[in-house]
Amino acid sequence: MSGPERTLVLLRHGESVWNRENRFTGWADVPLTATGHEQARRSGEQLREAGIVPAVAHTSVLQRAIHTLEEVLERLGGARPPIRYAWELNERHYGRLQGKNKAETEREFGPDQTLAWRRSYADPPPPVDLDDPRHPRFDERYAAVPAERLPRAESLRDTGHRVLPYWERQIVPDLDSGPVLVVAHGNSLRSLVMHLEGIGPAEIQQRNIPTGIPLVYRLDAALGVLGQRYLAGEDELADGIAKAIQRP
Amino acid sequence: MSGPERTLVLLRHGESVWNRENRFTGWADVPLTATGHEQARRSGEQLREAGIVPAVAHTSVLQRAIHTLEEVLERLGGARPPIRYAWELNERHYGRLQGKNKAETEREFGPDQTLAWRRSYADPPPPVDLDDPRHPRFDERYAAVPAERLPRAESLRDTGHRVLPYWERQIVPDLDSGPVLVVAHGNSLRSLVMHLEGIGPAEIQQRNIPTGIPLVYRLDAALGVLGQRYLAGEDELADGIAKAIQRP
Repeated sequence: MSGPERTLVLLRHGESVWNRENRFTGWADVPLTATGHEQARRSGEQLREAGIVPAVAHTSVLQRAIHTLEEVLERLGGARPPIRYAWELNERHYGRLQGKNKAETEREFGPDQTLAWRRSYADPPPPVDLDDPRHPRFDERYAAVPAERLPRAESLRDTGHRVLPYWERQIVPDLDSGPVLVVAHGNSLRSLVMHLEGIGPAEIQQRNIPTGIPLVYRLDAALGVLGQRYLAGEDELADGIAKAIQRP
Repeated sequence: MSGPERTLVLLRHGESVWNRENRFTGWADVPLTATGHEQARRSGEQLREAGIVPAVAHTSVLQRAIHTLEEVLERLGGARPPIRYAWELNERHYGRLQGKNKAETEREFGPDQTLAWRRSYADPPPPVDLDDPRHPRFDERYAAVPAERLPRAESLRDTGHRVLPYWERQIVPDLDSGPVLVVAHGNSLRSLVMHLEGIGPAEIQQRNIPTGIPLVYRLDAALGVLGQRYLAGEDELADGIAKAIQRP
């Protein structure tokens, strides 16, 4: 690439069926809604209009991220970047909350505890049992992952503990080749934003990443942030952030 | 990987709209038919049943190959291999024949000439003009390809001249990581089969690769062929080959 500046695009998948139903999703492999597909296509157009041509793309292994990336690449046109799939970019594992909506969770655990799990940095929700079908060991896509690395529930901190090593090892080297696109999830992207911007546990709770709007970072050669912007108009962005705040 | 044996899977995309209409397709970016999507899903199941887990996947940049690969990976389940997209794996460029069906071509150029273009190893069909919309320079996905490498029409030999360097440089190194899946086209795969099996120009004309049936090679460490088989029953294979012979 020319010059020392790097471009990183973070994209949270489009709206999923469980986003719409206000359910804790985590590692549950829920499809996009029609709106989510449309958001993904729009993201592709926004990147195209911004003249950003990814040299490499990374995505989680959950279908809402994979299908978002596929829609983006269809709309982007041009030469296709290689794609890498990584479980390390998956959403925070929500343990036994997965599949429950906010109201159900509040009834079962109380509203204060529910809010605490959503907002706490270091406290994971109640873990799934080893025999719970929500345990990742029952999903063949994680068969090659060492059992001790497979989460039964994660705090945001736990999520960062797998996202950041992947960032360092697999994504950072790709930044030398040109813009890198990372399609992932609300909390896996939050972990990355904390690291990039040097944000602490309290402040990150105020950062709600909307679904389906590309977030573009300009980085210097030492990966310091030179600037960041969402590829969206003010109204669209405000609406997206409002939705991200309300949903678990 | 364990041991010196390598696994290579070649897969011709599922049936496209122009396969069905008997049109010369080449670099025209024609979608799969519903049958083509179904063939692709079946290929994924066949690979799954055979226990073949690709470590890396390569595809051409034409949508009939890309969508075939996406269907295959959905059905395969398991961890997703990285994907690399390469124009070098595109179908043979059919020049001014692209878009015409066999009957139209025979009327315009005569049946003998038409057959000669289909069967000849070294004679390209009439090239598209530099201003013809079928010239690849009008397609942004080839914007980064040096102009002198963009074909206006190709013989099977010309096709091999771009497929084989890609094979050597990009695919062969990946064979060390595990099984490699290559999704491409009738003639780009023929070029590869010629090279792998040491087949000459006359003999390759008898090798018709059916759409949507995985062809599995076992290779030794020096890339000599230890064995090859199609993942299909005899009837399905015979039917697929018969179709491949009839179509341009």
